Amino acid sequence: MMIIMKASSTPQEVERVVDKIKSLGLAVHLSQGVEATIIGAIGETHSIPTDQFEVMDGVEVVQRITQPYKLASRQFHPENSIFSIDGFTVGGDEIAVIAGPCSVESRSQILETAHAVKEAGASALRGGVFKPRTSPYAFQGLGEEGLELLAEAREATGLPIVVEIMSQVQLDLMVKYVDVLQVGARNMQNFNLLRAVGETRTPVLLKRGLSATIEELLMSAEYVLAGGNKQVVLCERGIRTFETATRNTTDINAIPVLKGLTHLPVILDPSHSTGHYDYVAAVARAAVAAGADGIIVEVHPDPAHAVSDGRQSLKPEKFAAMVKQIGQIAQIMDRRLASAHGSYSPQGWA
Amino acid sequence: MMIIMKASSTPQEVERVVDKIKSLGLAVHLSQGVEATIIGAIGETHSIPTDQFEVMDGVEVVQRITQPYKLASRQFHPENSIFSIDGFTVGGDEIAVIAGPCSVESRSQILETAHAVKEAGASALRGGVFKPRTSPYAFQGLGEEGLELLAEAREATGLPIVVEIMSQVQLDLMVKYVDVLQVGARNMQNFNLLRAVGETRTPVLLKRGLSATIEELLMSAEYVLAGGNKQVVLCERGIRTFETATRNTTDINAIPVLKGLTHLPVILDPSHSTGHYDYVAAVARAAVAAGADGIIVEVHPDPAHAVSDGRQSLKPEKFAAMVKQIGQIAQIMDRRLASAHGSYSPQGWA
Amino acid sequence: MMIIMKASSTPQEVERVVDKIKSLGLAVHLSQGVEATIIGAIGETHSIPTDQFEVMDGVEVVQRITQPYKLASRQFHPENSIFSIDGFTVGGDEIAVIAGPCSVESRSQILETAHAVKEAGASALRGGVFKPRTSPYAFQGLGEEGLELLAEAREATGLPIVVEIMSQVQLDLMVKYVDVLQVGARNMQNFNLLRAVGETRTPVLLKRGLSATIEELLMSAEYVLAGGNKQVVLCERGIRTFETATRNTTDINAIPVLKGLTHLPVILDPSHSTGHYDYVAAVARAAVAAGADGIIVEVHPDPAHAVSDGRQSLKPEKFAAMVKQIGQIAQIMDRRLASAHGSYSPQGWA
Amino acid sequence: MMIIMKASSTPQEVERVVDKIKSLGLAVHLSQGVEATIIGAIGETHSIPTDQFEVMDGVEVVQRITQPYKLASRQFHPENSIFSIDGFTVGGDEIAVIAGPCSVESRSQILETAHAVKEAGASALRGGVFKPRTSPYAFQGLGEEGLELLAEAREATGLPIVVEIMSQVQLDLMVKYVDVLQVGARNMQNFNLLRAVGETRTPVLLKRGLSATIEELLMSAEYVLAGGNKQVVLCERGIRTFETATRNTTDINAIPVLKGLTHLPVILDPSHSTGHYDYVAAVARAAVAAGADGIIVEVHPDPAHAVSDGRQSLKPEKFAAMVKQIGQIAQIMDRRLASAHGSYSPQGWA
Repeated sequence: MMIIMKASSTPQEVERVVDKIKSLGLAVHLSQGVEATIIGAIGETHSIPTDQFEVMDGVEVVQRITQPYKLASRQFHPENSIFSIDGFTVGGDEIAVIAGPCSVESRSQILETAHAVKEAGASALRGGVFKPRTSPYAFQGLGEEGLELLAEAREATGLPIVVEIMSQVQLDLMVKYVDVLQVGARNMQNFNLLRAVGETRTPVLLKRGLSATIEELLMSAEYVLAGGNKQVVLCERGIRTFETATRNTTDINAIPVLKGLTHLPVILDPSHSTGHYDYVAAVARAAVAAGADGIIVEVHPDPAHAVSDGRQSLKPEKFAAMVKQIGQIAQIMDRRLASAHGSYSPQGWA
Repeated sequence: MMIIMKASSTPQEVERVVDKIKSLGLAVHLSQGVEATIIGAIGETHSIPTDQFEVMDGVEVVQRITQPYKLASRQFHPENSIFSIDGFTVGGDEIAVIAGPCSVESRSQILETAHAVKEAGASALRGGVFKPRTSPYAFQGLGEEGLELLAEAREATGLPIVVEIMSQVQLDLMVKYVDVLQVGARNMQNFNLLRAVGETRTPVLLKRGLSATIEELLMSAEYVLAGGNKQVVLCERGIRTFETATRNTTDINAIPVLKGLTHLPVILDPSHSTGHYDYVAAVARAAVAAGADGIIVEVHPDPAHAVSDGRQSLKPEKFAAMVKQIGQIAQIMDRRLASAHGSYSPQGWA
Repeated sequence: MMIIMKASSTPQEVERVVDKIKSLGLAVHLSQGVEATIIGAIGETHSIPTDQFEVMDGVEVVQRITQPYKLASRQFHPENSIFSIDGFTVGGDEIAVIAGPCSVESRSQILETAHAVKEAGASALRGGVFKPRTSPYAFQGLGEEGLELLAEAREATGLPIVVEIMSQVQLDLMVKYVDVLQVGARNMQNFNLLRAVGETRTPVLLKRGLSATIEELLMSAEYVLAGGNKQVVLCERGIRTFETATRNTTDINAIPVLKGLTHLPVILDPSHSTGHYDYVAAVARAAVAAGADGIIVEVHPDPAHAVSDGRQSLKPEKFAAMVKQIGQIAQIMDRRLASAHGSYSPQGWA
Repeated sequence: MMIIMKASSTPQEVERVVDKIKSLGLAVHLSQGVEATIIGAIGETHSIPTDQFEVMDGVEVVQRITQPYKLASRQFHPENSIFSIDGFTVGGDEIAVIAGPCSVESRSQILETAHAVKEAGASALRGGVFKPRTSPYAFQGLGEEGLELLAEAREATGLPIVVEIMSQVQLDLMVKYVDVLQVGARNMQNFNLLRAVGETRTPVLLKRGLSATIEELLMSAEYVLAGGNKQVVLCERGIRTFETATRNTTDINAIPVLKGLTHLPVILDPSHSTGHYDYVAAVARAAVAAGADGIIVEVHPDPAHAVSDGRQSLKPEKFAAMVKQIGQIAQIMDRRLASAHGSYSPQGWA
C-alpha cells in the first residue's frame, strides 16, 4: 500500500503516518520526492482498509498495490479451482448447465421440469423454495415441502439440486437436502449468511448483487473461503443500470475480468440478467463464447402460469435448442457440456 | 391494473386474460378499442405482480394504476405518521438529529461522543456494534459489550440509542437494549430480517439500499408494516451511480418524492451519502431545506483514529456548527430541532 | 396512445384531454371504467410527446402503444436492411470486421496497420483524424492530412475507410474521402450533426451514447433516416455504470434487443466497451454469438506508443487470432466473415 | 504523476518508462521499494493522459497527483471567480435566479413570462430557440424569430437573456443577441462547440452531461477557458441513474464538491434535475442551502399547453413563492438574491 502525501504535508504528518504503519505490524519504505513524499506500507496489507490512512492529515491519496482479497485471488492460486458436484465438474473443461423453475410450485411441475431439462442436457436442477420477493403479498415459496419435492426430482433424474438459502436459520434444513447452496443477489452482502455457509462444506453458488462491483463480489467470496469452504462458484446475473429495455444489464465484461482475477469458477444467469425469454439464448451463447464455466437458466413447462418469473422462463423445447447451440460454442472454446453422473449424453455433444 | 392487448391479439387470448383476472378474485372491465383492447382488473391488485399478465400471449403491456404497497401509501393514510421516540417525535414539526460514531470502540469513546453530540443538540445517539464490513478481515464490532456501553451512554445523557441489526438471530438481544432498530442498506431486501423486525414493536430505521428504487424502499417498509410494526422511519443514504468523486450520490429528489408517496417520516444520512466530512454539512442543510424530517450523522472525537468510516465522520465542534445551521433552516421550514426528553435546549434554536 | 385518467378526474378534465387529442388530428376512443377512465388517442402518435398529456389535470399516466420511432422500427420494415459498403455487405449473412488504430498518427503507422488488418481478415479500415478528447491539451488528430493517409491506405489495400465526423462543418471534407461516416458516442444526440449526415447518402455508423437508452439510440437513427439516408449501422460500444473494473460496461443484451426492435444492422465495439486489450477477444466472440452483424476493433502495431487508446488496442497478431475465432462462431450462427471486395479470403473462413 | 511498477517489472521496463517521461519534457524521480518501484514524473503533467504509461509493460498503476485541468482549478486560482452579467453578479454574494420557458413559443408567451419572473424576483430570463429534441418529429424551436422575441422581452424588462446554442454554425447569430450562451447537457462534450464559444467573450453557462463525471465537466470548462473566455458558469442539472421516479437524479453532492475543486460559479437546474414541478421548489431550496450560486428554472404561464417540458415547468405564482423561500435560505448562507440592474427589489428579501 502506497500512501502519497500532499506537497504541503509537514514532517510531523509524515511521521504520524509512519507510526501508524508500524503500529499495524507493517514495514515502512519512505521516499522523499520533489512533488510528493510517498510512504510504502509493506506486509499483509490486504486486511487494512485504505481509509485508515486517507483520513490522516497531510495524506493526498492511498493506492493499494495488492488486492483486498487473498484466498479468492489468482495471484496466490494461479491454476483454476475445479470442483466436483455430484457427477460433473465445474471450473475445468466442462460447461455446467443448471436449469429449472424459479419456484418449486408442485410435485408435477418440478418432476416434469426435471425430466425435461435432463433430457435436454442439463447437468443440475435449480428450484426455489424460500423466495426473496419484493412484495410481502407475493408467493414466498413452499419451504421444506419444496425441498422434499426437489429431493424426489433428484432421485428420479440423477440431477444434483441447487437451491437458494435466504437466512442462516435455514442452514440446518438446507444442508440436509441440497447439493449446492445458492446465495442470491440480494444477500450477496448479508455477511452473517456468508459466514454461515462458509462453515459448511456444501458447494456455494454466490450471485453478484444488483449493484455490487466485481471487487465486492470477490470480497463476499472471501468471507465464504475464510470460513474454510473452498467450493465457491461465482455467478454474474446482471447489474442495475439506467437501461430499462431489459430487467438488468448483463455485464458480459465480468466474465473475462473475473476469470483473470480469480481461480474460482464463473457462470452466468441469462434469465435474470435479461429478464425476458426472448433474449436468454443469445446471452447464454455469449456467456460461453466469453469464457464462462456454465450457465444457470430458468425453465418452466408453462411460463404463462408460473407463480414467479414467468416472463424470463424458457419452455423446455426452447431450452433444448439453446443447449445444443451452447454445446457447439463450447467445442470452439475447447470445452464440452457437463453431464450429470457422466452417464447421460444425448445427441452426442459431450 | 390495466392489461393492454396487442393489436394482433386474438379473442381467445383476450378470454384467457379475462379468465385469469377472475381466478384472482378480481372484477373485469373490458374495452374494445380500434388500436387495442384494454382489460381492466379491478379490486385488490396491489398484491398481484404485473408479470402474471405480461407473460400471457397477446399482452402488449400491463399498467398498474394503484401502487404495489398499501400500508406505506399516503393514498390510504393521507396525514403524516408521527412517532414518539423516547422524548422526541419524528414525522411532525420536530427535526430529528441522530448522531454518533460509526462503531462503538470503547467506553471512553462512546461516552465522550454521547456527551458531545447531546451538548451540540442531538436528539438520539447512534453507534454500531455488529458491523457489515466488505472485508472479512476488518473489525466486525464489539457485539453485546457494545450494547452495554451504549446503554450506559443513554443512562448518562438521556439520549435514546439507534443501533443496526444485521440478522434475525440478533433480535432478542437487540430489543433488550435499543430504542430504534436500524436496518442497513445492505439488508434492505433481507426479507427474513424485515419480517423479524416487523414482529417487534420497536421503532425501525430502514435505510435505502445502494441500488434500490424508491418503490422498492417502500415495498421493504411494507414488509415491516405488514408484520404490525407501524413505526418505520425511512432513510435516504445515497445511491450508487457512475460518479466517483463521492462515495455515493445523495438522491435529494428522494426527499420530496417520498414525502409525497408515503406518510412515514423520512430522514437523510449525509455521512454515507457523501462519504466525506467536507461535504456533510452542506448536504445536511440541503436535506432539511428539501423537507426531510431529520438527519443521521457520524460523529467521532478523533476521526483519524476511528476503526471505521473516519473519513466521513465529523469532529464534535464541526457537528455543533452544523446543528446550528440546521436549526436555522428548520425555522424557515416552520419546524424546530427535536430535543431528547424535551428538556434540553442549548443555544435556543428550538 | 392511452391516457389513463385518475379515479378522481372530473368530466371537464376528461373533456379537455379529448379536445387536445382532436386538436392534434387524432381520433378518440373513450372507455369509462370503474376505477379509471381511459382515453385512446388513435393515429400518427409516434410524433406526439407523452408529456403533452402527462401535464394535464386529471391525468394519471400516459401509455404509448406504438414506438416513438417509425423509420427505424421493424414493425414497419420486418426484413433486415442490408447495405453494401464498397465490397462487402452488412446486415445480412456477412459479419463485418472493421479494424484500425484509434488515431491516424503517421503514414507508416496507418499503412502498416491497414496491411496487417487486411491480412488478418478485416473488411474495412477505421482511423480517427478529428479526435474527441476529454482534455483540450491532448492530441486532437491530423485533420485533412489524416484523411489523405487513409485514402492512400484504402488505395493500397482495397479496404473501405470508416472515419468519425465531429461537426457539421467537417461534412464536405469528410464525404470527399470516407466510405462510412462514424458518429461517435459523445455526439449521438448532437442533432445538428445527425441532420447533416442524414442529408448525405454516405453510410453512417452511429454509436450509442455513454448513457443513452436503446430507445434513444433508435430515435437518433430516426433523425438520420428522416433526412433520407437509409444506410445506418448501429453500434453498441459500452455504457457507463458504477463498475470501474472496466472502462465501460458492454451491454450485450442490447444486441438481441436491437435486432428485435429494428431492421438496421447492429455491430459491437469491444475495444471501447471494455477499455482493455485483455478483454477484447472474449467480448468480440460474445458479440457474434449474441447475434451482432459485426465488430469494430482498435488495432495498433505498437500500442505502447499509440498517441491515444493504447490500452485498448490489439496488436496485429492478437487481432488475427481473434478474427479466426470470430469466423468459427459465425459459422455456428450460419454466417460468414465479410471480405472486402469479395476477393480476399485468407485461411478460408469466408 | 506517479507510475507504480509491478513487483515483477524488469530493469528494462523501468528504463523505458523513465525514457518516456524524459521524452515528454518532464523530470524523473525514481524510488526503488521492496514491493514496488515508483517513478515520479514531475512538471506539467496535467496535459499528459495517464494511459500513455498504463499501456507500458511492467506498469501496475498510474496515479495522478495534480488534476488534469488547470485553468478551472481552485489550486491555481484560490479565490472565487465573480462575473458581472448585465446588472447582477454571479459567483459572489448574490444568488442568481434565471427563469423562463423551455421554448420561446410566441410573442405573448415570452413577454408574459418575462414580466412574471421579473416581478417574482428573477435576475435573468431563459428561453430556448434551437431545441435539442430526442425526436426528429418534435418542435425544434423558432430560431432567429425566437431570438428577436427574447430581445424584445429583455428590452421590456431589463432582464439579460440566457439561450442555448446547439452548433458552432449558430455562433454569429447567437452572440448578436444573447447575454449568456448556454451549452446544453447533450453538448457538454461537443468539443468543437466548446472551442467555438471559448473564442467569444460572451459568458457561458455550461451544463453537466447526463452521465458526465464532475471531472469531465471541469475538463469541458477547461476547453472554454483555454480559448480565453474566462466567464464560465457550471450547472448541475441531474444525472442519469437507475431511479425512474424522477426524470434525473439531482447530484446535490456536486455542489460542495465543485465549490471545492473550482473557482467558477456553480448553479443548479431543479427543473431538469427532477423533471416534475412538484419537486422543483424543494430541490431549489436544497441547492441554495448546499452552497449553490444560483438556480435556473423553467416557468411557463400555462404548463398544460407548453410545447415542451410542461411537466417540469412552474406556474408564475408557484415560482414567486419559491423565490421567497430561496431568499430566506440565502440570508442564512450570508448571501442575497441577485436583482437585474440592482434596481429591482420586490418584497424586500435582498
